[in-house]
Amino acid sequence: MKEKLFDLKKDNAKRIYIKGSLPGVEVGMKEIELQNGEWIVLYDTSGVYAEEGYEPDIEKGLPKLRERWTKERIERDGGVKTQLWYAKNGIVTPEMEYVAIRESQGITDEAERITPETVRKEIAEGRAILPGNRNHPEAEPMIIGRKFLVKINANIGNSALGSGIAEEVEKALWAVKWGADTVMDLSTGKDIHQTREAILRNTPVPVGTVPIYQALEKVNGVVEDLSWESFRETLLEQCEQGVDYFTIHAGILREHLPHALGRVTGIVSRGGSILAKWMEHHHKENFLYTHFEEICEIIRQYDAAFSLGDGLRPGSLADANDAAQFGELKTLGELARIARKHDVQVIIEGPGHVPMNKIRENMDLQLQYCDEAPFYTLGPLVADIGAGYDHITSAIGGAMIAWYGTAMLCYVTTKEHLALPNRDDVREGVVTYKLAAHAADVAKGHPGAARRDLAMSRARYDFRWRDQFNLSLDSERARKFHLEMIRNSDADYCGMCGPHFCAMRITKSIKKQD
Amino acid sequence: MKEKLFDLKKDNAKRIYIKGSLPGVEVGMKEIELQNGEWIVLYDTSGVYAEEGYEPDIEKGLPKLRERWTKERIERDGGVKTQLWYAKNGIVTPEMEYVAIRESQGITDEAERITPETVRKEIAEGRAILPGNRNHPEAEPMIIGRKFLVKINANIGNSALGSGIAEEVEKALWAVKWGADTVMDLSTGKDIHQTREAILRNTPVPVGTVPIYQALEKVNGVVEDLSWESFRETLLEQCEQGVDYFTIHAGILREHLPHALGRVTGIVSRGGSILAKWMEHHHKENFLYTHFEEICEIIRQYDAAFSLGDGLRPGSLADANDAAQFGELKTLGELARIARKHDVQVIIEGPGHVPMNKIRENMDLQLQYCDEAPFYTLGPLVADIGAGYDHITSAIGGAMIAWYGTAMLCYVTTKEHLALPNRDDVREGVVTYKLAAHAADVAKGHPGAARRDLAMSRARYDFRWRDQFNLSLDSERARKFHLEMIRNSDADYCGMCGPHFCAMRITKSIKKQD
Repeated sequence: MKEKLFDLKKDNAKRIYIKGSLPGVEVGMKEIELQNGEWIVLYDTSGVYAEEGYEPDIEKGLPKLRERWTKERIERDGGVKTQLWYAKNGIVTPEMEYVAIRESQGITDEAERITPETVRKEIAEGRAILPGNRNHPEAEPMIIGRKFLVKINANIGNSALGSGIAEEVEKALWAVKWGADTVMDLSTGKDIHQTREAILRNTPVPVGTVPIYQALEKVNGVVEDLSWESFRETLLEQCEQGVDYFTIHAGILREHLPHALGRVTGIVSRGGSILAKWMEHHHKENFLYTHFEEICEIIRQYDAAFSLGDGLRPGSLADANDAAQFGELKTLGELARIARKHDVQVIIEGPGHVPMNKIRENMDLQLQYCDEAPFYTLGPLVADIGAGYDHITSAIGGAMIAWYGTAMLCYVTTKEHLALPNRDDVREGVVTYKLAAHAADVAKGHPGAARRDLAMSRARYDFRWRDQFNLSLDSERARKFHLEMIRNSDADYCGMCGPHFCAMRITKSIKKQD
Repeated sequence: MKEKLFDLKKDNAKRIYIKGSLPGVEVGMKEIELQNGEWIVLYDTSGVYAEEGYEPDIEKGLPKLRERWTKERIERDGGVKTQLWYAKNGIVTPEMEYVAIRESQGITDEAERITPETVRKEIAEGRAILPGNRNHPEAEPMIIGRKFLVKINANIGNSALGSGIAEEVEKALWAVKWGADTVMDLSTGKDIHQTREAILRNTPVPVGTVPIYQALEKVNGVVEDLSWESFRETLLEQCEQGVDYFTIHAGILREHLPHALGRVTGIVSRGGSILAKWMEHHHKENFLYTHFEEICEIIRQYDAAFSLGDGLRPGSLADANDAAQFGELKTLGELARIARKHDVQVIIEGPGHVPMNKIRENMDLQLQYCDEAPFYTLGPLVADIGAGYDHITSAIGGAMIAWYGTAMLCYVTTKEHLALPNRDDVREGVVTYKLAAHAADVAKGHPGAARRDLAMSRARYDFRWRDQFNLSLDSERARKFHLEMIRNSDADYCGMCGPHFCAMRITKSIKKQD
């Protein structure tokens, strides 16, 4: 860390902590002091990195924030119980209180605040999850569900063609700095175990993986050699390390394949294609499906969560909402019910490439088939021809589906379909998705969401430029663009229109004379 | 022009012409030859610049494509008649046949082709406009209406703080290269007349302006000194030069001001604020409203068109869909009816900043109040906190409102709210908006729109990388991103997943063994 990645002072902000009633509940937030003497408190994903004076040590890793809660519970309750178990049994955990406080940022009306009881209820009924592997105590508690703020995930990870451990850790921190609520390590290249270890020990948000990738790497990339036993071993290895949620492609079945293989773009999920090939070769059902209850039992022991993978998501507009996709979605719903029976939390992954007019159906059927389990979508991309701009193609669909009820969006970067994203692509992708998620929060009427927009708009009308920068999702870029042109943070106009053609300046001159 | 801006060969494409039945109708298109021996013909905005061997000469300007039609008509019909007059009288002009052919690109089913009669009918009923000042014969005919492809406009123009004539012409050509269907010259700085002249003579698409800007510049920026007479003179000057459509803020009235001045961000339209100030100072009604029929008569003489400006568009989510905005919209509807009575074509401008859940109401009321006149919106931006990313904030709203029925989108660049866009910002903004417009065309079910996506998806599944680049909205960026990582256009994988984890490659290996 040569440069100081997390510097809230630049935004005239600091990290504050709000105490809860349960022991050790102290929720970190970002408090921005405005030029007009007001202040605003924002949800913040950067964890202890944002504390003044905190010196990151990548070798040592982050402080183990949740360790105390987890250990106490295991001792008291005679073993691991999941957040879902506690919720079902009417118990509010410290994590639940933590997220209730966190989600209430920006809510001024006391009656509208998210209560710990609301959190507990949403988890108990399977409409939200609070992912947190007991071996990843570095992560701050967060919740994914459609009653709460829309979350975003940033995929990182190397491929056989590039990137190293330091670069991937840097991408993870970069993602968290710009607001990623979770990070998925999708490494398929070298040093998969070590890369993940470095990411887990240094990331203050939940981390997800797709364990079939490493399982395949262990059999030298020969799909036919995959087996339940080797997969199980990989899953245990990753559970032990502390992975918070796992993409498991247990819903793709032999019966779905004829539908999928006739498509314009076939199977575009890596996990889906691997399992399809394994099934066709062995003439057997997907081993993740046939061993699903065993997987539940493993995951339950760590209080990790499922992200049931959509191996048959459409990779083109032409394949959207087809029999393969919705057939698998129905199976995912069955699996979600089984997981919950085992007290394991579940979210469901969704598409993909879908034209705007077919997005709503995805959301409606997902809620119906999966008993309202949280939906976690990749975009969807609303066109196929946006290569180089697919962060935007997908942010359009992402904002819409999040408004309709999707709980978490998986970002897509400018490099999608083309290459591995670098650090700058991660930033662009994360900020784009924060924007899409925020737009959905506002449209859904989340009680605190529009407060930041209001503060921003007031700052605009007052020409408080520093506040405008600091309230922007990417304060550094906003500051840079403005100052490149007019080199003055106190001007009552901007470089776009200049002083004589500033509409707000002219409007104010009217009000003065009245 | 040191660099060759328009080089279709890079995309394995060429400019072709499709002949119509009326004299001189030859519609330029871009034909891409694909690696599999197929070809695809696309709508192309770059005009004669894209012809092989064409040598641009900025001093001389473009060939006067439409001059013959215009002159012949004036002689034959004893004066200028507008496209709306011809349409109302059942006459199909060469321009109408031209746009019918142009709009039918990509449509394979003969029964679904857009006919010249459909074009005539849509214009006659005011649901579409075919803007083309008789003194801008350089522009290729194009149509704006919700039965047709969604169009996009790129704003260019200097401000008092920067840019020169050569730079603005370059931005215009750059906009057209990336697909802008119209260009608006919003210059408010130096050399307004000369900048516009250079743009008009060298731009193959319709050009719009906001004449109040130059009128204000002529009275040295003193709003109080504006008058109907000086505005009229400016309008005539711009009509003579060949401006194709004019933003006229005739709908902002004294009765709307109390609503507007109490808003969070007041009036954010430059034209709107100027007229509000003028009205308040003189205690008189907006002179553009009181002289509206005279404006119609001037514009009619050139067959230019109205873009009725929304001086009271909301500049923040908090102000969206308020009494000021919808009050003005109603007045714009009245004015549209008056303009049509004078045989002048009209489009209506729309917001602005609007949360996703309030977008639909904008479209519905616009159709209702304005008798289905084409809607032309700026975004809308679905959040206020995206500074530096407002091309995206607004593309989300833009795609949605275009799907709902908006006929043309005005792009917003990354520099919105901060600074004047440069050439690269124009490119990013135009491509982003082409994407939003295209997504809407697909969602609306335009018969030819999804054909390009299908060709792209097939190219993806076949690993025809050159075709993927050439079919992308920004072929240069797609090519660059891919080749930076793997330096090979013939690989059957990409740098994102690498060879062993390419889902499509694995899927194909399944199909082969079957």
